[in-house]
Amino acid sequence: MRGLFITFEGPDGAGKSTQVQKLSNYLTEEGIPFIHTREPGGTAISDQIRSLILNPVHKEMVDETEVLLYAASRSQHVKEKIVPALEQGYIVLCDRFVDASIAYQGVGLGLDVEKIKLINEFATGGLTPDRSYMIDLPVSVGRERMAARNQLDRIEQKGTAYHETVRGAFLELYEEQQERITLINGENNVEEIFRTIKKDFISLWDNYCKNN
Amino acid sequence: MRGLFITFEGPDGAGKSTQVQKLSNYLTEEGIPFIHTREPGGTAISDQIRSLILNPVHKEMVDETEVLLYAASRSQHVKEKIVPALEQGYIVLCDRFVDASIAYQGVGLGLDVEKIKLINEFATGGLTPDRSYMIDLPVSVGRERMAARNQLDRIEQKGTAYHETVRGAFLELYEEQQERITLINGENNVEEIFRTIKKDFISLWDNYCKNN
Ligand SMILES: Nc1ncnc2c1ncn2[C@@H]1O[C@H](COP(=O)(O)OP(=O)(O)O)[C@@H](O)[C@H]1O
Ligand SMILES: Nc1ncnc2c1ncn2[C@@H]1O[C@H](COP(=O)(O)OP(=O)(O)O)[C@@H](O)[C@H]1O
Ligand SMILES: [Mg+2]
Ligand SMILES: [Mg+2]
Repeated sequence: MRGLFITFEGPDGAGKSTQVQKLSNYLTEEGIPFIHTREPGGTAISDQIRSLILNPVHKEMVDETEVLLYAASRSQHVKEKIVPALEQGYIVLCDRFVDASIAYQGVGLGLDVEKIKLINEFATGGLTPDRSYMIDLPVSVGRERMAARNQLDRIEQKGTAYHETVRGAFLELYEEQQERITLINGENNVEEIFRTIKKDFISLWDNYCKNN
Repeated sequence: MRGLFITFEGPDGAGKSTQVQKLSNYLTEEGIPFIHTREPGGTAISDQIRSLILNPVHKEMVDETEVLLYAASRSQHVKEKIVPALEQGYIVLCDRFVDASIAYQGVGLGLDVEKIKLINEFATGGLTPDRSYMIDLPVSVGRERMAARNQLDRIEQKGTAYHETVRGAFLELYEEQQERITLINGENNVEEIFRTIKKDFISLWDNYCKNN
């Protein structure tokens, strides 16, 4: 039986990596087989594309190139790593996926969202998450949390207006697809957020086990 | 007035680079301002993408990734280099363009050609060459010419059947778009081919000068 595909979405600093790690720990304790991966990256080729995208030197990168590089990285990641793991029955936890491209590149850069969707459908072969945990956070709070980090990458360096637009785009995606997306308030503390995710995950998992 | 955009297409070893060079020399002699560029590549970012695509180590690269990387390289090339040059009135000579993606990735890899066209339209913003010189050559002849080179790249290493399919795809593009594409027999000698290209170019250029 095919495994569950679970993604974590939301702005920088929302707490995605923190929560993927906590869910990973939980799955390990429970002995449920899973892999933990992230975008952009996750394979040797994707990692090389990732460093090309995020290199702060590449200030001249045009928006369409950014979109296409994310999609290129994603198609390699999906076909080389995510789909084979799902087919072997693993749960796949993925830090960011298509929603991030729609929010950051599509809406954020003011590009044609329908085209971004088509390109990503080509890249993923239509693979859609079974559940996406979308952690929402005011931009200013995310920025404060990120300030602690050493150097911001090329996307993180963009201004506040850009990041406000991205936040709005994530919330719109939630409005459209509440079946798939669970919205979470990222201002709550780490443990409280994880309780919400764990509770949702357990019901998803029970359902999955019943049907397989 | 916007410059002319001229591309060179056809299989490996057909003589594209040889002929671009000859046309460049001619334009230099005539004092006609032009730039000479190539795909994939042509800008710093595109060159990095090019080396990622062609690296023979990347045997695991999936077809969709190849398509998207070519398109990413192309969008950077078009917006950073080709369009600015055309807007300043330069002729742009480009060694390979969208036709190559349709032939090598679309038809050659058995992907959905309509999707490849859509992705490339996104990448180029719809930019289409004013003239494409398509040099046709039997695959075996191209292979013999290439055998002289040091190491074949990842695409060149593919088998004869693949390259036959690609040749057929180029010929179909010619059938569809004879207005834009000039078909040339690459088995003729270098000087004879260049006479054909030069004659066609002069009529294109005369027409352009009359209208501008
Ligand atoms: N709920 C939370 N409350 C306060 N700080 C948090 C919370 N979740 C994460 N953090 C901290 O915020 C920073 C960014 O968290 P991280 O998980 O890396 O976010 P993301 O992966 O979404 O960018 C880290 O320093 C992390 O410890
Ligand atoms: N018309 C021709 N007849 C014979 N050899 C040719 C001809 N045109 C090019 N060549 C040779 O074939 C090889 C490939 O030519 P090149 O211009 O690099 O092709 P391409 O750029 O299409 O791969 C080179 O060694 C070149 O000198
Ligand atoms: Mg993170
Ligand atoms: Mg060449």
